[in-house]
Parts: sequence; C-alpha cells; structure tokens
Amino acid sequence: MRYLLYYWPEIQGRGEFIRLALEDAGADYVDVWRSPRGFSSPDKFPNTPGLKPLAFAPPFLVAGKQLIAQTPAILYFLGPRLRLAPKTKSGGLWVHQLQLTIADWLVEAHDTHHPIGSGLTYEQQQREAKRRAADFLAVRLPKYLAYFEGVLQRASGAYLLGKAPSYADLSLFQMVAGLRYAFPVAFGRLEKHYPRIIRVHDLAAARPRLAAYLASPRRIAFNRQGIFRHYPELDIPGKNSKKT
Amino acid sequence: MRYLLYYWPEIQGRGEFIRLALEDAGADYVDVWRSPRGFSSPDKFPNTPGLKPLAFAPPFLVAGKQLIAQTPAILYFLGPRLRLAPKTKSGGLWVHQLQLTIADWLVEAHDTHHPIGSGLTYEQQQREAKRRAADFLAVRLPKYLAYFEGVLQRASGAYLLGKAPSYADLSLFQMVAGLRYAFPVAFGRLEKHYPRIIRVHDLAAARPRLAAYLASPRRIAFNRQGIFRHYPELDIPGKNSKKT
Repeated sequence: MRYLLYYWPEIQGRGEFIRLALEDAGADYVDVWRSPRGFSSPDKFPNTPGLKPLAFAPPFLVAGKQLIAQTPAILYFLGPRLRLAPKTKSGGLWVHQLQLTIADWLVEAHDTHHPIGSGLTYEQQQREAKRRAADFLAVRLPKYLAYFEGVLQRASGAYLLGKAPSYADLSLFQMVAGLRYAFPVAFGRLEKHYPRIIRVHDLAAARPRLAAYLASPRRIAFNRQGIFRHYPELDIPGKNSKKT
Repeated sequence: MRYLLYYWPEIQGRGEFIRLALEDAGADYVDVWRSPRGFSSPDKFPNTPGLKPLAFAPPFLVAGKQLIAQTPAILYFLGPRLRLAPKTKSGGLWVHQLQLTIADWLVEAHDTHHPIGSGLTYEQQQREAKRRAADFLAVRLPKYLAYFEGVLQRASGAYLLGKAPSYADLSLFQMVAGLRYAFPVAFGRLEKHYPRIIRVHDLAAARPRLAAYLASPRRIAFNRQGIFRHYPELDIPGKNSKKT
C-alpha cells in the first residue's frame, strides 16, 4: 500500500517521527507537501465545504480510504504493518505508551523556546524561554532520560522492546539527534549517563535504510523553524545535570 | 473484570478522564490510592528492585496481568470494553485521535498556570502565567473549541461519533467543566459560540450513572492542586475571544 503523509515541508517536526518509520521500513510513501503536487494549507485538507477539517493539525496519514491524525496514533497504526511494533494487542499498547511518553517529552522540548505561545516569535518570549529551558535541562530532561534508560535496562536486548527495534526506538534516535542539535553543551554533559539510550541512537543510525535516508536530501536539516532549535543562550547546563 | 486505577488521590487531574469512563459504564474498578489500601508512591509501583518503574507517571491501569500507562492509551484500551468506543479498528483510531487532541488541549490548559516548570509553585511563575493564559484564552482555546465544534457539526448525531456517546465525549464534558471552573469570565464569554460542545457537556452530565457519580463524594472537587485552577488574575477574556 502507498501511504500519503501530509506534513509541513520545511521542518522535521512531528512528521519526522513518521518519516523515520516509513524510511526504515522501506515503505512506499509520498511526502505530499514536499512532492511535485506541492503544498496546500491544512485548512483546505481534507476539505468539505463549510465544515472544519477532520484533523486538528498535521501530520496526517492517508492509507487507502482511512485518514489518521496525531503522530502517536499514526505510528500505532503503521507499527505492525511496517514490522516496527509487535502484532499482539498488549505489545502494541506497550510501545504506544512509550511513544506517548516521547510525545510528552517532545512538547516540553518545544516549549523551551516557545513557553508562552506558538503563534509568537522566539524573540517575543526569549526571557521566559530562558527560565523554561533551564528547568527543562535541570529537571525534566534528566527525568525522561532516566525513564527510558530504565526501560532499556529492563529490556532483554538493546532496544526498548528487546532484540527487535520498534518505531519508538527510531523516535528515541530522533530525540537524541534533536537534543544534540538544540543543546550541544547541556545535553553533551548529560548523555554519557544514559549509555543505553545512546546505543539505541547509534544502532538506529547504522541501519542501512535509515543511514541512507539520513544522508539523503530527504532528511531536512535541523533549523530554527522546527521543534528542536539551537539558541546558545538557552543551552546552559543545569545545576542538577546529572543522572537522577 | 475488576480494573485497578492508580492516580493521585487528591485531584481530578488526568485520572478523571478515566474515572468518568469507568463510572459512566458502571464498571467494576478500584481507585487504588483512594481506597483503604491507600496511597503508595508511583516510584514504588510497579516495583522491581533496582529498576525504574514501567510507567513514566500516573495514571496507570491494571487489567488482569496487563499494566497500561498514558491516559489516551488507557481509554483506547477501555473504550470498546466499556461500550464507549466503536469496536472497529478505524472507528477506534478515530476516537483515539480525538482523545489525543484533547490531551494536547489539556496540557495547554495546565500550562496556563505552570508555563515554566511543573516542579515550581504557581507563585514562582505568576508573571509568565499571565502571558501564557492570555495567549491560551485569545488564540489556542478558540482554536480547539472550533475544531471540536466542527467535528460535532459533521457528526450524524449530538455526540462526536454520532448518536452514541464515546469516552471522548465524556472527556469533552470534563474540558467544559474544568474551563468553567478555571476561567468563569473568559470561558463564559466564549462558550455560547460553541453550542454543540455545550450540548455534549449537558447530555453527558444528565446520563444517570454519570449524574450519580458527579453528585457523590467520589467526584473530587476542582481545586488549586489540579490541572484546572482558578486564579482570577489569569481569567481575562482575550481580545480575540470570539468564534474563529
């Protein structure tokens, strides 16, 4: 089946978590708003005259006649089809709740530079961003890292679910990549305390299809429009920047 | 089956979205940390010596041998069992993505009083809270309301999925109840523009088991420890407080 992915064409953003799964699986998909068909506003898609769109925000995935919105729901749907999640109900729910926790973490990473309003510029909320980023780096980030390191410690292999990688492992790769870009100093000091997470990152990056994707022009570079943004003034190691 | 719900005993919080579904369905459940067995720290549950807990944060649900974390995942699991979601895969995913959108909305409602850090007090971030609340009430809240009003407009009945209520409708009830508590002035002006959402609230509140629950001591009162908090200084109608 050919999947249609609809997401902003100029950022990795939430869509990247889906792109990574599709790419790693070698799935047949079109990144519609980056394709020759080009971009159309989500307000116009899916369009029924006079009615609001079905999905609150991109990304959406179209699979046959089905439209699915919300990144974790899209990955829950794709997981078993792409062999990136267990086929059992309980296994599927377990990796889904890991992904939902990554989604929470991602919002907090985003809000370091946009703590007041996503419709305002960074510069309009820079003062608040400094406080929020400091709290994230000192308190929240170590908490998330410790949780995933603990899940990996329990696992029967190098990946979150054991010996086989899941879409949540690819998402964990993306979190590490994004945090390294956004907070090279602060995350640089933290990451050595979480060797299992870094191992997942390295294993994912070395997977042949993923490595090819990451080296291709399909992988959009990190930039200051995305979720992970590098502002040196926010990249200050926390006083509690150690393993919790 | 008897379900075990683990959530903070003194607030509605995220757990309330699950309580509402269990109560509406007349399910057999124990609200463990509010029961005579009492409270134990989530760090001690589920406990395996030397390892981190499986779940990042409450709520968790135990159903037989299965532990499920993350509110939307718990509701996705319970939905068809409680007859509060379609049994089809596509129907289940559709109500799930609605719930995930409510979860995003809920984080934004929470962050109006905690825009900097959940470990800090409100007073430590009151200045930032005023800016964030203003943005939420003027920009974000109308956007979420318009989305759900639009979904209801498309529906073939009074509820989000049509004629039968789903857990997402009960969650929508909870959003209205919480917003009325937190922002009586600002939400009071907004809500008349979203009659279909208010109708869902009223229909849910009138369901016999839910009405009995809401009138019982099992329903914890809104308070200043929860997600929805009333601070008069944050309850300022936005300049754009109209239907978008």
